[in-house]
Amino acid sequence: KRTQSHSFRRKLDIRGIYPPIATPFAQNELVDYQKLDENLEKYSKIPFRGLVVQGSNGEYPYLTAEERVEVVHRVRQRIPKDKLVIAGSGCESSMATVLMSEKMAQAGADAVLVVTPCFYRNRMDSRALIHHYTRVADASPVPVILYSVPGNTGLDLPVEAVLTLSQHDNIVGLKDSGGDITRIALIIHKTRKEGFQVLAGSAGFLLAAYSVGAVGGVCALANVLGHQVCQLEQLCLAGRWEEARELQYRLIEPNTAVTRKFGVVALKQAMEWSGYHGGVCRPPLQPLSEAELRQLQHDFSSQGWL
Amino acid sequence: KRTQSHSFRRKLDIRGIYPPIATPFAQNELVDYQKLDENLEKYSKIPFRGLVVQGSNGEYPYLTAEERVEVVHRVRQRIPKDKLVIAGSGCESSMATVLMSEKMAQAGADAVLVVTPCFYRNRMDSRALIHHYTRVADASPVPVILYSVPGNTGLDLPVEAVLTLSQHDNIVGLKDSGGDITRIALIIHKTRKEGFQVLAGSAGFLLAAYSVGAVGGVCALANVLGHQVCQLEQLCLAGRWEEARELQYRLIEPNTAVTRKFGVVALKQAMEWSGYHGGVCRPPLQPLSEAELRQLQHDFSSQGWL
Amino acid sequence: KRTQSHSFRRKLDIRGIYPPIATPFAQNELVDYQKLDENLEKYSKIPFRGLVVQGSNGEYPYLTAEERVEVVHRVRQRIPKDKLVIAGSGCESSMATVLMSEKMAQAGADAVLVVTPCFYRNRMDSRALIHHYTRVADASPVPVILYSVPGNTGLDLPVEAVLTLSQHDNIVGLKDSGGDITRIALIIHKTRKEGFQVLAGSAGFLLAAYSVGAVGGVCALANVLGHQVCQLEQLCLAGRWEEARELQYRLIEPNTAVTRKFGVVALKQAMEWSGYHGGVCRPPLQPLSEAELRQLQHDFSSQGWL
Amino acid sequence: KRTQSHSFRRKLDIRGIYPPIATPFAQNELVDYQKLDENLEKYSKIPFRGLVVQGSNGEYPYLTAEERVEVVHRVRQRIPKDKLVIAGSGCESSMATVLMSEKMAQAGADAVLVVTPCFYRNRMDSRALIHHYTRVADASPVPVILYSVPGNTGLDLPVEAVLTLSQHDNIVGLKDSGGDITRIALIIHKTRKEGFQVLAGSAGFLLAAYSVGAVGGVCALANVLGHQVCQLEQLCLAGRWEEARELQYRLIEPNTAVTRKFGVVALKQAMEWSGYHGGVCRPPLQPLSEAELRQLQHDFSSQGWL
Repeated sequence: KRTQSHSFRRKLDIRGIYPPIATPFAQNELVDYQKLDENLEKYSKIPFRGLVVQGSNGEYPYLTAEERVEVVHRVRQRIPKDKLVIAGSGCESSMATVLMSEKMAQAGADAVLVVTPCFYRNRMDSRALIHHYTRVADASPVPVILYSVPGNTGLDLPVEAVLTLSQHDNIVGLKDSGGDITRIALIIHKTRKEGFQVLAGSAGFLLAAYSVGAVGGVCALANVLGHQVCQLEQLCLAGRWEEARELQYRLIEPNTAVTRKFGVVALKQAMEWSGYHGGVCRPPLQPLSEAELRQLQHDFSSQGWL
Repeated sequence: KRTQSHSFRRKLDIRGIYPPIATPFAQNELVDYQKLDENLEKYSKIPFRGLVVQGSNGEYPYLTAEERVEVVHRVRQRIPKDKLVIAGSGCESSMATVLMSEKMAQAGADAVLVVTPCFYRNRMDSRALIHHYTRVADASPVPVILYSVPGNTGLDLPVEAVLTLSQHDNIVGLKDSGGDITRIALIIHKTRKEGFQVLAGSAGFLLAAYSVGAVGGVCALANVLGHQVCQLEQLCLAGRWEEARELQYRLIEPNTAVTRKFGVVALKQAMEWSGYHGGVCRPPLQPLSEAELRQLQHDFSSQGWL
Repeated sequence: KRTQSHSFRRKLDIRGIYPPIATPFAQNELVDYQKLDENLEKYSKIPFRGLVVQGSNGEYPYLTAEERVEVVHRVRQRIPKDKLVIAGSGCESSMATVLMSEKMAQAGADAVLVVTPCFYRNRMDSRALIHHYTRVADASPVPVILYSVPGNTGLDLPVEAVLTLSQHDNIVGLKDSGGDITRIALIIHKTRKEGFQVLAGSAGFLLAAYSVGAVGGVCALANVLGHQVCQLEQLCLAGRWEEARELQYRLIEPNTAVTRKFGVVALKQAMEWSGYHGGVCRPPLQPLSEAELRQLQHDFSSQGWL
Repeated sequence: KRTQSHSFRRKLDIRGIYPPIATPFAQNELVDYQKLDENLEKYSKIPFRGLVVQGSNGEYPYLTAEERVEVVHRVRQRIPKDKLVIAGSGCESSMATVLMSEKMAQAGADAVLVVTPCFYRNRMDSRALIHHYTRVADASPVPVILYSVPGNTGLDLPVEAVLTLSQHDNIVGLKDSGGDITRIALIIHKTRKEGFQVLAGSAGFLLAAYSVGAVGGVCALANVLGHQVCQLEQLCLAGRWEEARELQYRLIEPNTAVTRKFGVVALKQAMEWSGYHGGVCRPPLQPLSEAELRQLQHDFSSQGWL
């Protein structure tokens, strides 16, 4: 049993930028693997540390268990070996999450990203979440990354739970999409000795996250502006904060458009404009209205990205 | 195609009281069908209109697709033919919900209860939800009941969406668990001509819901105090409001304890105290703490139910 | 000292319907007492139990301390002696609320309505609120009515605080504008022995509130449709629930329009349409947009009130 | 009329660190000016750019209009001329805010800090808020600083309103206490050409705010750890980010304790521990419980500040 030991040197190094890739669908609403392959080929040329497969932008709640695994399998086959594949394996029950984590590992994932269960949110306190993640991390053949995304789940993984879980040998980090920079800084401060690594969950606060010690980001916008997000990473790592700030500014509005404001539907539209396969989402997600489309276009073009 | 016609006389009559039954699990976390059968035998002797299977209290997000169908199948076999079986068939995607509704119908469900998809809540506006429910209702072999449960989903099915959907021939009603009595009254007022039927989603506001025209209730508390909830129904239907009020008062605290305050974990505990099989929940749901247990006990005993 | 005794027979009888009257302003933004008088003359002919002066719809946060008292003084002079004048005396600090309550009593108020302080909402727990209301009730020359209006304050007076405070001799009731009917029923159930009286804070759930034991209502809509709200009261008291329901239905949409949806600006506009002086609000409250105006008109005319 | 011109060179330079000072009260709940003076003498020796008087931590909602002005007058008299006095002049109505701003200017304030009105929050949209601030800024003899503090008001000043208002000659900046770093960066990006200056409203995200271009902070914690907050400012301005980060880390927990977690009551307690006069708050604010006190102590001592 690996719980609670402190040999953090063995923790997988997850520093870097990851796009949480979108899942292309064909007209019949099935996964279009051909289009996925073509996107992957393009992503392979960008200096990403790896790809996140089945994050929120992968529409994983709309995929069957089989599809979830198959997509990860496909990604692993198509991208270079040195790129990490981080697979979202979160389900509502602990039992299902353990099973899915095992399958993701078999499919070639280097790590699993486990979203907070949220349906019974009133009962998802620190005690329940520590229990859940410990069970998953004890069983998972590959390292676990915690995933807090209150915009979707209505639930923020409590700081005290993160601190406890950071001590688990098989829990290597956190993707925090909430964007509360004070919380992010506090978590980094209190978990450093464990080799715990925090990734910003959005390009909107990537510079700020680096400024307080984050080691990378899982950024929806990187599906569209991958080179630019990696450039922002490089500027931060090099301590070129002035230039970083100017680039950060120009990424905020397009980032907000493809996340908080319009979500994955807009992300896929912007991918189309940028030479990737985006396409439609599975219903009930609806296409953007005309007005939304114009706003999206403006949010990219006003910053010079279209 | 049955959309938008007005032949509401054909709409299934769903008036009455339903317990949204709990799913008993064995120590190994698998469904304990033997215990389920024993509960069903007891429920068959209470004047329920039927049972709701896979409501929030059925822990449906913790069941596999196969388990969900199998439980419904088992319930249909074990309860009298004149009792309705209403099966929760909601999934996040429209495609999966259609498929699950078909399977539930094959398993013997008389109607399906379809919760609002909620993961991409920012995009789940009236347009998306009307699209979703119309597609499901067009395809479902059995009538559809809308299900709004903001306590779990963080999303209230908008009134305007309900009004539009009430016109669909295969959509017969709404289970509203939000408890906003003004909203409930408005929906009833505006949908009466469609033969649309509103069920209170909790015993806490059952009398008030009857007072504004609701026709029944899906009440977690009915798993424990089934006769009493049915008695409250009878008092309301008979216009014996004074007596109804006194009974309603005594049901509020135990109801709150097994819903908002402590949830399904408490419901299952109270079932144990009352001669039913409740047992543990699937993790990550945790057992009640000692303090919670005492509070739960007090909430029942102070009103004379223990 | 009157705290904690149980001689509830002395508690002021506040049963009935009250409009929380609006404050008319002249073009120069000062209180227009002439217009106020004319409204009062009309209200005197409606079977209200009394008037609430300086509720949320009185724009009390926009009045100076002197204006607040002067308006109450004027109302007391102009309406019949048998009508109660309930004056809003709530301020953020306990000290100021005590002082204002004394002034309101001197100005002729029969009781004071005390809103929950809310600026430091994180610290306004039961302990603080019990302390606040006890101090005010100990000092106030006239009875105190608690006032919970989460739509404005972002704070619901906790049930446990209400229960404790209901035992105070000089606290006679609660105006609850939150509309959670389960909570309202529970409060009535648990405070009956104290002679504590609960008033619905809105016409939208007036019937439902009567059905669970409320004794009246403070209803913004009564500023416009006073006779109709009083008629609904009479139908409920007479046990004519079917007729009550039909009338209740027709009041919901206009009520929502002048409360949750568009607020006091719309209330004043609807007053103008109905022969009362409404006029503009003090800035920063802005007039309705054209689209809002049309919607407001529709919400009244579709139910036959315009 | 000064609205909408672009001569931003004249905008008052507000760069730097400010404590939003607490108001000491005597046992009789009146302002204790002697204690205030002693605090001011100590603050004068710390390299603050100035003081904010009547921010949320000044308990301004608990002061009378006369007290508010008198405290500002006293502060102006007692601190060095080169320190800015920024006076909170926000009231709910535009009329009252204009009047209070004029009085604050007469009392010697160098600028006024105007909180968003919030009681009628549903109607406080961009249109209303732009109208409010424009009227205040047009009339105020001294420059206006916008103030968004959603933790108290439940309202975030919309970005679009900030952008419009930044063009006003007499509006020089924003104190943002919400802590959404993406929003802060966006506002800075879009208002730079106007000479608009953004101050972080809390020490918890001060480094991150500097990293995206903020020019200072109004930090409750500076009432207690004034030198340390100024040191963090200096490290950020000097580009010594590594050292800044280490200091920032150690300020987060004490900062959270005196803001979000326990509020001004805790701030005043920590001031006592650090040689300042804090004392009690005006009721209904209650003293900390024993458990809260221990937690507060721990939040300071664990970082080496006690």
